[in-house]
Amino acid sequence: MREEFRADLLQVGRTLVAMAEAIQAAMQRATHALLKADQTDAEQVCDRDAEIDALYRIVEDKVYDVIARQAPVASDLRMVLTALHVAGDLERMGDLAKHVARAALRRHPAPVIPSELTEVVERMGEVADQLAGKIAIALINLDAVVAAQLERDDDVMDELHRQLLNTILKPDWPHGVETAVDAALLGRFYERYADHAVNVSRHVIFLVTGENAA
Amino acid sequence: MREEFRADLLQVGRTLVAMAEAIQAAMQRATHALLKADQTDAEQVCDRDAEIDALYRIVEDKVYDVIARQAPVASDLRMVLTALHVAGDLERMGDLAKHVARAALRRHPAPVIPSELTEVVERMGEVADQLAGKIAIALINLDAVVAAQLERDDDVMDELHRQLLNTILKPDWPHGVETAVDAALLGRFYERYADHAVNVSRHVIFLVTGENAA
Repeated sequence: MREEFRADLLQVGRTLVAMAEAIQAAMQRATHALLKADQTDAEQVCDRDAEIDALYRIVEDKVYDVIARQAPVASDLRMVLTALHVAGDLERMGDLAKHVARAALRRHPAPVIPSELTEVVERMGEVADQLAGKIAIALINLDAVVAAQLERDDDVMDELHRQLLNTILKPDWPHGVETAVDAALLGRFYERYADHAVNVSRHVIFLVTGENAA
Repeated sequence: MREEFRADLLQVGRTLVAMAEAIQAAMQRATHALLKADQTDAEQVCDRDAEIDALYRIVEDKVYDVIARQAPVASDLRMVLTALHVAGDLERMGDLAKHVARAALRRHPAPVIPSELTEVVERMGEVADQLAGKIAIALINLDAVVAAQLERDDDVMDELHRQLLNTILKPDWPHGVETAVDAALLGRFYERYADHAVNVSRHVIFLVTGENAA
């Protein structure tokens, strides 16, 4: 029973890592699509979101199956249900990458991001990439130290988000309201992506240490 | 055991209804704060979000407790875990009401919403209120018919959201970029609130009919 339970957990863990890798690739591609007005990349992110959703359902089904077959209690039960929370956050991060990709298509072939914002969006994409990469590592190694780093990365994301809004709201902003609104919503997608990454990291810390980081 | 399980479910159900009522009141108050620049209301929404979070944790603890004590399987297990999903959506709806309340405070005592947008925001508030009210009814009666109505209400919310964006993006918009960006983000908060309401309704439909509505 115990052996079987461990094997089940390992399988759930592997699926979560696959999800983390998928949402990392999705946001990489979405950011590229956004900065380079790349239609193929943007469409691929939208199309492949279904794969992330399918991985979510695999985790969910497996978790239900494990609970029904193994009736775990105490820390085993918490561990299994935590996997469900992690999968939920990762699924939502996939949605946010899709939102970015859709925004990239909105005025194709014209770019959505004006040159004043290219650098800050590039950096938001980099931070998103680091966050997703660290999630994968934290999940593979159940590493609370890596997981704890995500809070700092999230602070960087918040700072970049503030920079983006400040640029938009300068009195001499030359690109009008529509571009500003698009950029503000895009900024929010990256910021939410980082928030969900932090949620995942807190779940990993809880799994490893048994303590709530929140 | 069966009797006890029913009593547990009833208690979880009651807590979910309390959450639904709390997030309905929160969004009512947040919309009022937004339209009337009412600082007291806005602060109350922010302060009382902790109560909604506490209700979420009560549901979570109870669900864990029920699974550990009763080891439910099959449809019983699905029902218990669905409650966890519903609580998650309701908790997030509380956060979105808090975001609206915070936006209302941002330029207090000056209003955040210019007169051109008062009506559409009022209507978004009304639809949010209907959605939350129907969630409470659907949860109390486990009513799939009421739950199914939420998809239509969500369509109305999406249409209002489009109207709001169209108004902001008119070439003769007189209020500048900052007001437009604030309004666009507010529109998104209401739209997300409605999305989460639809998620809850789908969970209720699944509970009642055993079929996925998504």
